[in-house]
Amino acid sequence: MDIKPDFEKGNGLIPAVVQDYSSGMVLMTAYMNEEAWLKTLETGYAHFFSRERKKLWKKGESSGNLQIVKSVFIDCDNDTVLLKVEQIGGAACHLGYDTCFFREIKNGTAVITGKKIFNPDDVYN
Amino acid sequence: MDIKPDFEKGNGLIPAVVQDYSSGMVLMTAYMNEEAWLKTLETGYAHFFSRERKKLWKKGESSGNLQIVKSVFIDCDNDTVLLKVEQIGGAACHLGYDTCFFREIKNGTAVITGKKIFNPDDVYN
Repeated sequence: MDIKPDFEKGNGLIPAVVQDYSSGMVLMTAYMNEEAWLKTLETGYAHFFSRERKKLWKKGESSGNLQIVKSVFIDCDNDTVLLKVEQIGGAACHLGYDTCFFREIKNGTAVITGKKIFNPDDVYN
Repeated sequence: MDIKPDFEKGNGLIPAVVQDYSSGMVLMTAYMNEEAWLKTLETGYAHFFSRERKKLWKKGESSGNLQIVKSVFIDCDNDTVLLKVEQIGGAACHLGYDTCFFREIKNGTAVITGKKIFNPDDVYN
């Protein structure tokens, strides 16, 4: 059977969860439109749709921290996908952390639990 | 600092990624409104907002497959959260699988890679 995500449901966008294929760490979530989905499958590198910039975005295009897609999963409702990736550079977050989920919430307070890999000022202009 | 997700951004809803705290398996994603968020923190059980039924939904309320929240993380943009949970019953998916991401996409085809834990007909009326 041929299968693809149901882009209609979320007005053209679906959430994509990105997980490190080796450690199992959840790195980030982002959104895909159909173009980003097809580009990801075609190239083997994670592509998303930037809701802010309203355009296709190859993850890591500025920082060099590309994501090599190892496997792709789709959920029971066909409205979310999971990418297992190799995270180049060891950092998924634009703030320089290994994961975008670098803060744990404890009693209403954010505690930094992620690992800082790079300084954003050194990487982005 | 007191911190909470930015519910405004997604018209009152944010995606929540749920991961098994022990195996690291990504179990599902769902949406939370502020009520679901507060109920989750208050009770220690995962609560979501059902977009279909348009109401608060305690995960596992029908099936018994509750999710005990072990830790909560928030992403860099404050618009997605990650719950690490103990999945009661070993199945997160309403179709009876361990994870909602029970299908891997290979060459446009869905291959079942998840483990079937229960038969939905036995669990839901």
